[in-house]
Amino acid sequence: MLSSSLAPTTPNLPPQNANHAEAIAALQARFSQQLTTNATVREQHGHTMTWLTNQPPDAVLTVQDKQDVADAVALCNQFKMPVIAFGIGSSLEGQLNAPYGGLCIDMHAMNAILRVDNEDLTVTVQPGVTREQLNHYLRDTGLFFPIDPGANASIGGMVATRASGTNAVRYGTMKDVVLALEVVTASGEIVRTGTRAKKSAAGYDLTRLMIGSEGTLGIVTEVTLKLFGISECIGSGLCHFPTVEAACQATMLTIQMCLPIARIELLDALQVKACNQYANLNLQETPTLFIEFHGTEASVAEQAATFADIIAEFDGTDFNWHTDEAERKRLWQARHNAYHASAALRPSAKPLSTDACVPISRLAECVSETAKDIAASGMIGPIVGHVGDGNFHVLLLVDTDNPSEIAKAEDIIGRLALRAIAMEGTCTGEHGIGQGKQKYMQQEHGDALPLMQAIKSALDPNNILNPGKIWPQPLAG
Amino acid sequence: MLSSSLAPTTPNLPPQNANHAEAIAALQARFSQQLTTNATVREQHGHTMTWLTNQPPDAVLTVQDKQDVADAVALCNQFKMPVIAFGIGSSLEGQLNAPYGGLCIDMHAMNAILRVDNEDLTVTVQPGVTREQLNHYLRDTGLFFPIDPGANASIGGMVATRASGTNAVRYGTMKDVVLALEVVTASGEIVRTGTRAKKSAAGYDLTRLMIGSEGTLGIVTEVTLKLFGISECIGSGLCHFPTVEAACQATMLTIQMCLPIARIELLDALQVKACNQYANLNLQETPTLFIEFHGTEASVAEQAATFADIIAEFDGTDFNWHTDEAERKRLWQARHNAYHASAALRPSAKPLSTDACVPISRLAECVSETAKDIAASGMIGPIVGHVGDGNFHVLLLVDTDNPSEIAKAEDIIGRLALRAIAMEGTCTGEHGIGQGKQKYMQQEHGDALPLMQAIKSALDPNNILNPGKIWPQPLAG
Repeated sequence: MLSSSLAPTTPNLPPQNANHAEAIAALQARFSQQLTTNATVREQHGHTMTWLTNQPPDAVLTVQDKQDVADAVALCNQFKMPVIAFGIGSSLEGQLNAPYGGLCIDMHAMNAILRVDNEDLTVTVQPGVTREQLNHYLRDTGLFFPIDPGANASIGGMVATRASGTNAVRYGTMKDVVLALEVVTASGEIVRTGTRAKKSAAGYDLTRLMIGSEGTLGIVTEVTLKLFGISECIGSGLCHFPTVEAACQATMLTIQMCLPIARIELLDALQVKACNQYANLNLQETPTLFIEFHGTEASVAEQAATFADIIAEFDGTDFNWHTDEAERKRLWQARHNAYHASAALRPSAKPLSTDACVPISRLAECVSETAKDIAASGMIGPIVGHVGDGNFHVLLLVDTDNPSEIAKAEDIIGRLALRAIAMEGTCTGEHGIGQGKQKYMQQEHGDALPLMQAIKSALDPNNILNPGKIWPQPLAG
Repeated sequence: MLSSSLAPTTPNLPPQNANHAEAIAALQARFSQQLTTNATVREQHGHTMTWLTNQPPDAVLTVQDKQDVADAVALCNQFKMPVIAFGIGSSLEGQLNAPYGGLCIDMHAMNAILRVDNEDLTVTVQPGVTREQLNHYLRDTGLFFPIDPGANASIGGMVATRASGTNAVRYGTMKDVVLALEVVTASGEIVRTGTRAKKSAAGYDLTRLMIGSEGTLGIVTEVTLKLFGISECIGSGLCHFPTVEAACQATMLTIQMCLPIARIELLDALQVKACNQYANLNLQETPTLFIEFHGTEASVAEQAATFADIIAEFDGTDFNWHTDEAERKRLWQARHNAYHASAALRPSAKPLSTDACVPISRLAECVSETAKDIAASGMIGPIVGHVGDGNFHVLLLVDTDNPSEIAKAEDIIGRLALRAIAMEGTCTGEHGIGQGKQKYMQQEHGDALPLMQAIKSALDPNNILNPGKIWPQPLAG
């Protein structure tokens, strides 16, 4: 129900100017060689990791600094033309598509690490810095940045989608590790949200409002992040289970016992098989947990012993773990290959990755029902997940030239989204809404949706910032 | 600079209806005995812990359920009358004053613990539940709720001010432990934000937006919180330092070494003296750290050994710690008495508590400069702090009948706020803005302030929700 008092004056309509020529000309005058309308480049930037058609922008701008971003957004606002920020293009729900055309701002050249404050365990970066680049840079400091979505995503993109990954169970998600942002608003102003203090009670939490807003409330030009000390000892291992349910139950007990596990990742039997084939491994092809402990040598050993006791209750077997770095890397490589290994199960198909997240007590049930649903459909869809958070992924291998396969995949994704919501969870734990999950926003948020839309209208009255994302939008009149 | 494109249509003016009689009559018709206009009750609810005069509301309503709240807010919105939610009245910056009169909604009767989900480590409560009530209720579950502002605050109030406390260094603040809220909006609708899933990437983070908004964006009617397992072993101790600076430096190194300390609290020499006098103790009257370790027996012992090494570098002495519960309680009682112990240093005066928070690398400097400032003023102002977060408090003992003392206290508070902001920190780590710190919002947030105001106007167009707080407001025309 849309509250009449909150009905936005412009109900998140796409910008009303469908003729972008004048805007492009103005951008060309300001940015000259930095701007291109080359069709191939545009298509690369309107790419999607979903089953949706490519929706290219009208032009792509490579920005060098915040002033470039501010000027570009101000011009787009003046001409009421859409503007979409682009990191490295690894988002999974069509966040970067340009359904109404407009300008794509490519942030890759804004990739400076501006300052590391070792004493405060903070770092300030430009949004084009990738997570691997950051950790490489930090290699001699004893510190690391823990958030690791599968791809080597840009920090700006990770802010936009509220990303997480394998370490989130211990270190949190982007919501937890961002201290402050610099953001270009819809009118082209540069504002700062937050400070370098670890906490604050001063005013509204604009930082958290921007995180996960998928470029619809502002464009991030600087990010201050928390860092963490690399533990003196790291122990990684794996163990096997007779069923996915048993693996989930072992995970649930691990979390319920408050074991400070750093990573706990599920691969179902099909995913393990895919990893074996892809990397010539010989892991036992049963549901498997990959785990990691961080701490002192004594504490890691203690955690591993407790974990061994837990899994024994659920017929977990062959648990072994290592602190040797080469051995650990080899083990996690198998996990990190999951996406490509799965894709190789059916090379002619396109992998569609979907995710959901439920309270941990519902995890076993949600995963089992989903596995049954996939099996009943006859599709190939390995399951892999950050199960310590109640979060898991299905990678459906779809022939996107076959409409009935797409429909089948959409049905599975839709049933999973609604199943997770019905279990008091969310239709996406970390991939975001983009275009792919708009239809579940009403079910998940109900009467809170008009509040989000009122905020959007207040901060972006012309709806130029990434229009057509997060909620379904009517076509321009 | 107020961006013209963001200039709110109603610039957060107080409600334009200064005659509340009609609204009170309508509320009386709906709520009968639940509503009172008794002067004493009104004065109790317009109380303030700052130096400001009592500003009572026109009436006080005791609500029994969310529908009461929704109906009351809808009526206030209809008549454009201010409405202020009241928990137990322990906020410190005038958050509960009614500068424009209106309705105070007393939430104390909405104090049910609605459900505990042990398996998920979550609990859902009504906003009138206090933190001590919650932990008492949880006593047989092995779980606890860690956020502990000094007072036995209500959970709703703690949401409103983004509260934290002594455990925040390990367990986070309200920002980190709230999973979901139920909120009554300015138009009187009941909406839910968030789910019971541990993480989500679905849409704007309304939960975090509401947390810390001090009742200006909605009134919380239900809160779902994360709980934590009580550690198998808890070790508490204290140690003494020659100077406040040395104690802060030991704290800084503890944090920089990523020791997972659960509490690390500073009391300056004056505060220790006050505690000795108040509770007849004989602690050494030098700057003192109270600390606590959570973990297994082995890990607590390991943490304590590391901590002993750290403080030795800064001439810390007499470090001893205990795992015995009675001994631990005795020790922390001294810390928890700090407020009343300080107040007793000058019984005729009123204690004004202020707080600030800086990046940990600036902590020693910020505390030292503040201590010098207090000394130079001749005022009595013990310092105590959650120093692991870079957060500390000054408790100024002020004769509030003496305008020159008030002015002197305001000066100290102002200089501390600006000092913290200049050090890339915040003018309040946990008490909030209320009326007391409005004047520092511009310095801290600059051009981000209009964004906050635009959000406020969008969600509360009549500005009925706790008007006159967070930012300075023009008087009604």
